[in-house]
Amino acid sequence: MRHIGESLGGKRVLITQASEFMGPVLVEAFKSYGADVVVDERVLDSGLAGEEVATAAGEVDVLIANLGVPAPSTKAHEIGDDEFRYAFAHIVDPLPGLFRGVLPGMLERRRGKIVVMGSAQALRSQKRVATYAAARSAQAGFVRAAGIEAAPSNVQINMIAQNFIENPMYYGPEVQANPAFQERLRREVPAGRLGTPEEDAQFAVFLASDEVGFFAGQSISFSGGWAT
Amino acid sequence: MRHIGESLGGKRVLITQASEFMGPVLVEAFKSYGADVVVDERVLDSGLAGEEVATAAGEVDVLIANLGVPAPSTKAHEIGDDEFRYAFAHIVDPLPGLFRGVLPGMLERRRGKIVVMGSAQALRSQKRVATYAAARSAQAGFVRAAGIEAAPSNVQINMIAQNFIENPMYYGPEVQANPAFQERLRREVPAGRLGTPEEDAQFAVFLASDEVGFFAGQSISFSGGWAT
Amino acid sequence: MRHIGESLGGKRVLITQASEFMGPVLVEAFKSYGADVVVDERVLDSGLAGEEVATAAGEVDVLIANLGVPAPSTKAHEIGDDEFRYAFAHIVDPLPGLFRGVLPGMLERRRGKIVVMGSAQALRSQKRVATYAAARSAQAGFVRAAGIEAAPSNVQINMIAQNFIENPMYYGPEVQANPAFQERLRREVPAGRLGTPEEDAQFAVFLASDEVGFFAGQSISFSGGWAT
Amino acid sequence: MRHIGESLGGKRVLITQASEFMGPVLVEAFKSYGADVVVDERVLDSGLAGEEVATAAGEVDVLIANLGVPAPSTKAHEIGDDEFRYAFAHIVDPLPGLFRGVLPGMLERRRGKIVVMGSAQALRSQKRVATYAAARSAQAGFVRAAGIEAAPSNVQINMIAQNFIENPMYYGPEVQANPAFQERLRREVPAGRLGTPEEDAQFAVFLASDEVGFFAGQSISFSGGWAT
Repeated sequence: MRHIGESLGGKRVLITQASEFMGPVLVEAFKSYGADVVVDERVLDSGLAGEEVATAAGEVDVLIANLGVPAPSTKAHEIGDDEFRYAFAHIVDPLPGLFRGVLPGMLERRRGKIVVMGSAQALRSQKRVATYAAARSAQAGFVRAAGIEAAPSNVQINMIAQNFIENPMYYGPEVQANPAFQERLRREVPAGRLGTPEEDAQFAVFLASDEVGFFAGQSISFSGGWAT
Repeated sequence: MRHIGESLGGKRVLITQASEFMGPVLVEAFKSYGADVVVDERVLDSGLAGEEVATAAGEVDVLIANLGVPAPSTKAHEIGDDEFRYAFAHIVDPLPGLFRGVLPGMLERRRGKIVVMGSAQALRSQKRVATYAAARSAQAGFVRAAGIEAAPSNVQINMIAQNFIENPMYYGPEVQANPAFQERLRREVPAGRLGTPEEDAQFAVFLASDEVGFFAGQSISFSGGWAT
Repeated sequence: MRHIGESLGGKRVLITQASEFMGPVLVEAFKSYGADVVVDERVLDSGLAGEEVATAAGEVDVLIANLGVPAPSTKAHEIGDDEFRYAFAHIVDPLPGLFRGVLPGMLERRRGKIVVMGSAQALRSQKRVATYAAARSAQAGFVRAAGIEAAPSNVQINMIAQNFIENPMYYGPEVQANPAFQERLRREVPAGRLGTPEEDAQFAVFLASDEVGFFAGQSISFSGGWAT
Repeated sequence: MRHIGESLGGKRVLITQASEFMGPVLVEAFKSYGADVVVDERVLDSGLAGEEVATAAGEVDVLIANLGVPAPSTKAHEIGDDEFRYAFAHIVDPLPGLFRGVLPGMLERRRGKIVVMGSAQALRSQKRVATYAAARSAQAGFVRAAGIEAAPSNVQINMIAQNFIENPMYYGPEVQANPAFQERLRREVPAGRLGTPEEDAQFAVFLASDEVGFFAGQSISFSGGWAT
């Protein structure tokens, strides 16, 4: 039986916004499985920008849609239109463009994988994250519909609904150094720790591997038991 | 024991986009419970537009965020940026503005209800609805986060995640006359029929009533068993 | 437009285990809507017991399956078979019997409502409730399947997935008097309070009313935002 | 970066009911990753039976709770108590006993994995599966609570919520040969095919590997997009 990830050898894997959010560890992980990683470091803020990145990459077997901006912590009744549109422009709007770029080829070849690096805020919520929860939920909805649509053509589209994963954008050193955050971690996250970037990247590898191809349109919680 | 909806007598209820989507039946239903219904027929396409409607309405006890545009049926890899942004502009972007307008007063008075007329596409999906599913999921995420945030102040914010409800925007006469649609209804919707506008409006009345105040941040399926 | 609950006038409503859990307030609520309430106070512990209660009641329009035993707080690795079976015998096993008793008539008359008074532990969980969470989840699964099956015959079967509702079995005076519990309530339940028995009963009335009939097979959280 | 499954080399993996349901392919998969597989072929029908199997196995690093009986297709109002109890005895009751047997050691060593081979019927449903849906949902509830409880001790407990996986118990050759079933597969399962036993076993390997340890208490759909 071939082992998980063996199929990635030589596969072309496009990773977007590759120097931010989960980008660096994703690049490292896919390379360690022998993939031919196409690194694009642009920060995307529109469908057109997404399409350009996809077009520039040429034919890819796997797209890792790694899109993120720092999450605002504005109260729900004080969210300005600029904050709201900024988050959607960076987290949501690039998706149709990226899909226009990579999905037709995948459907034609009847093989492909798309993994969106999303958030468990699409599944469960808390105070003062309404902008971010809305944008990440939009990703989940897009993935759910597109994933069901692409599945008959042997293209699997899924989302990692992560939270409490160590990364400089959301849970960097200064957040971790805060005793109140450590207390919150113990109280709210059953695992009692942050997830490591490496295990998050392994989950992306898993979803991108041909050894398993029976997920479709799903947003799977990866949050140490915070969202089940 | 006071009956459901009795508390609505004399309450000021703002209904947006009131001549479209579920607007007309909502107006009728809330009036039948004795509410003072504030009808606003503008079609909203931005946060600012939402804020203007809310400000024009003055103090309201209940906001029914009735926002809709016809759902496109584009394939996921052919969705243009214009289609995508148009749907979000009308379904999602008005929410922060509406909330800026009505929520501060509700929080201060420690009493209020917001009901978003959403879609079960935020819970379950199908082919060729990626734009719409994304936008309705964004609503659900916004409601989830804002609802949790407002609950301690005795303000309840929830969403009706409806599908297969008879209304001119999504399931008008011509759709209903299509035999393929009737066949689909029998096969996919356990109830085997469309929901009536009246029962949908009764659900909104229920969520807006003071007799029950223990829902918060929820998107509740109302789809004849299509999404459970 | 007829108001919610008007349809209950003269309807025969069977409430099981009626002196415990949510029984007393359910009896009061349905009576206040003019229903002909059939009170059965037996504590059920098998399918046969459920069938006997249903048969004794004769033809009913509505069944409120109110089944409960105190929730154990055993650690998952220390749960004994007796504890486990006791909870299932009282919470789960009566359901098939109750359904054998009331559902054939409802299907034949093409009209009926079943509401199971369940728990939000079927949706979200915490420590030391594995027995209870398993049993309440079994109820949710039974309701989901049976609800989908009965919907085409105009019989609606749904579950109230409640938590943090004031009642002598789970959240009685001594629990409420505990300062640690009050602190937990503020921290974990967005509403910051226990739900009242009355609002819980109103939710059951709503689900049992003919004014709304487009829910099917659902377990709807009623937990002050604890589970969304 | 160590690859997924490398950590399984030399690990003791107990697989229950190993000649049925997903047993044979699980044995093969874990062996191919170098695990020391403890095969137990007993069909379990009580907590005590589960505890005996666990005790006989001695210290294990991983438990694969593979429990199944053929799913009845009785209508919800015709389910007999014997059918109901038989399914629960085989699918649900063994869990507390298995956990009594293996979990204390895992908690003490602060390391361990439990994977329950469950069903997507715990997430979504259809007609004539009420017994089975209830039993599989009970598994999901047990896993959710126990998984949250064990996570702080670095023990991960999760469930594969599978459906439409090729296996002799549920989707054997005669089912597959039925043209109506093939038609149903095309219409209801987005992937348009049965999942292979091998990819199902790879999913179990993934959840049992130390390379990833940030899932907890989850029931993850593995159903070709049938349940998302």
